[in-house]
Amino acid sequence: MSMKALVYTGPGTVELLDRPKPTIRDPTDAVVRLLHASICGTDLHILKGDVPSAQPGLVLGHEGVGIVDQVGSAVLGLQVGDRVLISCMTSCGACRFCARGIVAHCETGGWILGNRIDGTQAEFVRIPHAALSLHPLPESIPPRAAVAMSDSFPTGYECGVLSAGVQLGGSVVIVGAGPVGMAALLTARLHSPSLIVVVDLDETRLAMAHRLGAHATVNSAAPDASQKLLDLTQGQGFDSVIEAVGIPATFALCQELVAVGGAIANVGVHGTKVDLHLEKLWDRNISIHMSLVNATTTARLLRLVESGTLDIGSLVTHNFPCAQAVTAYDIFQAASAHQALKVAIDFA
Amino acid sequence: MSMKALVYTGPGTVELLDRPKPTIRDPTDAVVRLLHASICGTDLHILKGDVPSAQPGLVLGHEGVGIVDQVGSAVLGLQVGDRVLISCMTSCGACRFCARGIVAHCETGGWILGNRIDGTQAEFVRIPHAALSLHPLPESIPPRAAVAMSDSFPTGYECGVLSAGVQLGGSVVIVGAGPVGMAALLTARLHSPSLIVVVDLDETRLAMAHRLGAHATVNSAAPDASQKLLDLTQGQGFDSVIEAVGIPATFALCQELVAVGGAIANVGVHGTKVDLHLEKLWDRNISIHMSLVNATTTARLLRLVESGTLDIGSLVTHNFPCAQAVTAYDIFQAASAHQALKVAIDFA
Amino acid sequence: MSMKALVYTGPGTVELLDRPKPTIRDPTDAVVRLLHASICGTDLHILKGDVPSAQPGLVLGHEGVGIVDQVGSAVLGLQVGDRVLISCMTSCGACRFCARGIVAHCETGGWILGNRIDGTQAEFVRIPHAALSLHPLPESIPPRAAVAMSDSFPTGYECGVLSAGVQLGGSVVIVGAGPVGMAALLTARLHSPSLIVVVDLDETRLAMAHRLGAHATVNSAAPDASQKLLDLTQGQGFDSVIEAVGIPATFALCQELVAVGGAIANVGVHGTKVDLHLEKLWDRNISIHMSLVNATTTARLLRLVESGTLDIGSLVTHNFPCAQAVTAYDIFQAASAHQALKVAIDFA
Amino acid sequence: MSMKALVYTGPGTVELLDRPKPTIRDPTDAVVRLLHASICGTDLHILKGDVPSAQPGLVLGHEGVGIVDQVGSAVLGLQVGDRVLISCMTSCGACRFCARGIVAHCETGGWILGNRIDGTQAEFVRIPHAALSLHPLPESIPPRAAVAMSDSFPTGYECGVLSAGVQLGGSVVIVGAGPVGMAALLTARLHSPSLIVVVDLDETRLAMAHRLGAHATVNSAAPDASQKLLDLTQGQGFDSVIEAVGIPATFALCQELVAVGGAIANVGVHGTKVDLHLEKLWDRNISIHMSLVNATTTARLLRLVESGTLDIGSLVTHNFPCAQAVTAYDIFQAASAHQALKVAIDFA
Repeated sequence: MSMKALVYTGPGTVELLDRPKPTIRDPTDAVVRLLHASICGTDLHILKGDVPSAQPGLVLGHEGVGIVDQVGSAVLGLQVGDRVLISCMTSCGACRFCARGIVAHCETGGWILGNRIDGTQAEFVRIPHAALSLHPLPESIPPRAAVAMSDSFPTGYECGVLSAGVQLGGSVVIVGAGPVGMAALLTARLHSPSLIVVVDLDETRLAMAHRLGAHATVNSAAPDASQKLLDLTQGQGFDSVIEAVGIPATFALCQELVAVGGAIANVGVHGTKVDLHLEKLWDRNISIHMSLVNATTTARLLRLVESGTLDIGSLVTHNFPCAQAVTAYDIFQAASAHQALKVAIDFA
Repeated sequence: MSMKALVYTGPGTVELLDRPKPTIRDPTDAVVRLLHASICGTDLHILKGDVPSAQPGLVLGHEGVGIVDQVGSAVLGLQVGDRVLISCMTSCGACRFCARGIVAHCETGGWILGNRIDGTQAEFVRIPHAALSLHPLPESIPPRAAVAMSDSFPTGYECGVLSAGVQLGGSVVIVGAGPVGMAALLTARLHSPSLIVVVDLDETRLAMAHRLGAHATVNSAAPDASQKLLDLTQGQGFDSVIEAVGIPATFALCQELVAVGGAIANVGVHGTKVDLHLEKLWDRNISIHMSLVNATTTARLLRLVESGTLDIGSLVTHNFPCAQAVTAYDIFQAASAHQALKVAIDFA
Repeated sequence: MSMKALVYTGPGTVELLDRPKPTIRDPTDAVVRLLHASICGTDLHILKGDVPSAQPGLVLGHEGVGIVDQVGSAVLGLQVGDRVLISCMTSCGACRFCARGIVAHCETGGWILGNRIDGTQAEFVRIPHAALSLHPLPESIPPRAAVAMSDSFPTGYECGVLSAGVQLGGSVVIVGAGPVGMAALLTARLHSPSLIVVVDLDETRLAMAHRLGAHATVNSAAPDASQKLLDLTQGQGFDSVIEAVGIPATFALCQELVAVGGAIANVGVHGTKVDLHLEKLWDRNISIHMSLVNATTTARLLRLVESGTLDIGSLVTHNFPCAQAVTAYDIFQAASAHQALKVAIDFA
Repeated sequence: MSMKALVYTGPGTVELLDRPKPTIRDPTDAVVRLLHASICGTDLHILKGDVPSAQPGLVLGHEGVGIVDQVGSAVLGLQVGDRVLISCMTSCGACRFCARGIVAHCETGGWILGNRIDGTQAEFVRIPHAALSLHPLPESIPPRAAVAMSDSFPTGYECGVLSAGVQLGGSVVIVGAGPVGMAALLTARLHSPSLIVVVDLDETRLAMAHRLGAHATVNSAAPDASQKLLDLTQGQGFDSVIEAVGIPATFALCQELVAVGGAIANVGVHGTKVDLHLEKLWDRNISIHMSLVNATTTARLLRLVESGTLDIGSLVTHNFPCAQAVTAYDIFQAASAHQALKVAIDFA
């Protein structure tokens, strides 16, 4: 039996092809029929050929929502027909990394979907270690919006908000207002800081950040952006600094913005080394954190979506039917021009 | 020079008397001119003669807002004329308890105002260890409402919310909807649990709890109150249980409500021993916490009031001029009948 | 194929019987051939008929060391022939409790061996969820001593030392010098407190506690035991109080001994309710913790045994061959008279 | 009245001069008569002219032990004649930094002794904020050894061991075996890791590290030092990496050595920026910490010295009488050649 799948066919090219429908391979597997799958910045890195583990012929995607279609014999707690959120991280639950909660480095999992094995941008996907890698999706959460819970929200929350130690009454700056930066903004609010400032080059995104609860925004194109930002803290700097871009210039800005006793959380994917100004920072009592998401907070975040405390409806701005999946990639690659944040593909 | 002061003159009696205006005694003292001072449940315990350290002749009160009138020579960071919040806890900052953050047990401080030394329900009060025991009160925070920040809010937050480990996506039940229970409700929301339930006998207070953000309320007079509460958690119990009454029956209820892995935070002032059902609870992986407030989070909570994240306007329901201070006590002693929460006295 | 097994045949009786050798039932199972299995106080509770989930016909035991004999198809990381430590706790790694580290309440595991399913006091045992419930046992650790790592050491460490917040420079008192109390003593030292005191009625055990590193010991039979203990702390009480007996009198003593800001960790198994003196303790800023062991620290403790930092050789004092297993129970039931701590049965 | 003092008289020169004996200036001051004062690497930075806040004419030194000679009127808990350890950090206990435990950035304190105000390398020194900046030194601790508790031990422990998250069963590498690296080694052991490796260029120091408890040592001059180190962890890297040198090469080595999920703690004082390899590290789930010591653990460490758990006797290797204080500096500047770690000056 065959299915439609979005396949990385070589540097720069993604094609909608027919592929065999996946089946259960290990007793801990499940197969999920996709409803929606979204595109992540990392998918673009693969297209560029920047991710050696992802080879041509791969079905792309690690984000999605669907219906359980088959369940392996050793999978507890899942039934055919269940509506599920697919986690971007695959977790065995038993290896030395999973035992410490560092699921991102699971010895037989981690980020494998749409990277080392076929991913979610297809009509069906096989999910290894299904018990820990799928989350029941409550009826009250619309699946179109929920795709942002596969990766963007846990990444913004764990790698951004938690790593940066956002806390009650503290000050936060988020450098970069893409999907993950916006997710960091929305989840930072859940920890009740007294000041959240968002920085970006794109005024449309800054306006959106305001609507989503930023106390202030600063356009980093301004020549005195750094000083403007420090002024918002009476010159003291920010307790929590979240880097959500991934280039040397933004990481440098973060070093200027961090307060004594504060933390910088790097969320951006970096391609080159950066300068660390230890000669200025060595005695500032700060920390710098960098991480791939473990997605171990997803169940708790889902409860907050269900209770109405966290509104995830703003992240997915564009949806395309399966037949126009290649167009979806084009739009996402020029996201700013299309006022797009996350772009998703509908399979049902 | 003399002043008006509310004096505990013996079991059951409080009188408005003339007393000498206090002066600086130690270089670390300040004298504050009161704007407003509120009454706490503990003041009623003193009136009943239940607090041996509080002897007749004492000026009552450990809550209040005022203007700095005199400053000792060793007090850093305070100026005559500053508007300040008086902390219910006096902190030297240097003893072995203060060094560990257990200000409530400061060797030369702790709860001394209106207990071991004259308190805030007067036109002036001497504040020992002023640098740590007074907080600048920003212009944007109305002083009438702010008296609830002297004790009620830090107590609800520290002894309730923090001790009970309220956290993102967790479930919370607050047993007792008096001023401290309401403060626990309002500050619990700052940690983004997915469920907050409030329990009380008074329907007016339960209705108010709803308005202040409780997801559900249960009247503990109902014969099946315990079961109703557990049903709200699908029988699993609550992650965080806050006892804000102080009698054996409510503490017993808390033991029935706590989930595996959860915590009970006792905030109520207890006069007798209680039963602890270790035979049922020993293997439930829970903890029980009991504490006097340290008020070390006050500065952070004030920032959240200033930024509009925490609305403290609901706690003080009644104000009386100084001349009617004794009436204020009468009303507070029959709080439920008057639909009162906190009652305050205006000195200016 | 049959094997020898120690079977609970009804209140008060344990018999060595022939039973069918267990086989793999689920793909996540393993079968282990026992080398040594030790007896726990809980096994005696079962014999008394105090544990309703343990029914006559059950093979006893949740502690042991052995060789992997069969492995299910979904078990990662284990090979036939591996020498393994059996954890007293069975963990699926995926349910809502395991995900939070509360393995003791695993929905399909927890304490099931020798309780809900056949246990370790037999030539072979089936281990469900084998990947997380067995630990590779390094060559350098003698298997006879290692049986104390199945339950006693993680219980003393997690339910005692960690729950009581034992920390660098703090003071610790351990009430009860049985196997778990001794394990708490040995593992408390790993956190470098400045004072460890052990309390018991048995002078032989107190002498052993001294040899194992207690700074002082107190016989609780002394009329002024409580005062003697407080004097060792200059009247301030202990930061960490570990209850390792399980009766009202010892829990009462713990309440007298805890310092302001301290914690009581209950490790004992209690059969009745106890008095909690909230009227004295409500304002002492303390916490009380009670838990069944999760055994999530076992791998780390094993590394310390391997590196020579933790010496576990003192806990198992008596070994009996399989044929004398019933005698082993007799000795353990009169442990103090035989100067026994842990008693083990050799199957190979 | 005059005294002998070691004065920084200009770049490269330190002289023993007569200076007026200090007196109480603020009611929170004390004056201490020195017994011993030790030299820190930072004193050499001042001599080189690298510390702009330290101007010629300054009495050097921020480490020492002495006898309280005078006490200001607002100092609680200190008496003339008390033997005290001088903390390298001066703490008001009340400013926004002290309230958060970040004493190093105290608004009227922090590192001021021998930097912004006259220091400890003199017969007498004035100590501002004496209540929090002096520690009673128990009789059982020899004052000659205790000077290492002013700065070296709390720095090694807080900026090294605590920042690097050294924990039970973890692996630790310490890069640099000077006084602070050795203090990190001795205090790391208090947290019971299973592996501690020390790296240096000086074989004498490596031999000493072995004697002080390192499980292994590696000479960083070896061409394959990095690989040898990783091999000691079976290629996994170290959970805790402590940089105690302060040059780009050692910081680069630390980035190669850190394990997934680990932490790098920078203790070295850096004069230039360094490369941070975010392109390799962004997804490794690590953190980097840099801090000036707060010395808030000193009291706890002193208790461990007193109880015999921590042996501090190895750090001070050379003592000189006051008259030879300039020679003491010469020896310390060529520490390795003289097999010196810490060098101290005796004033009594």
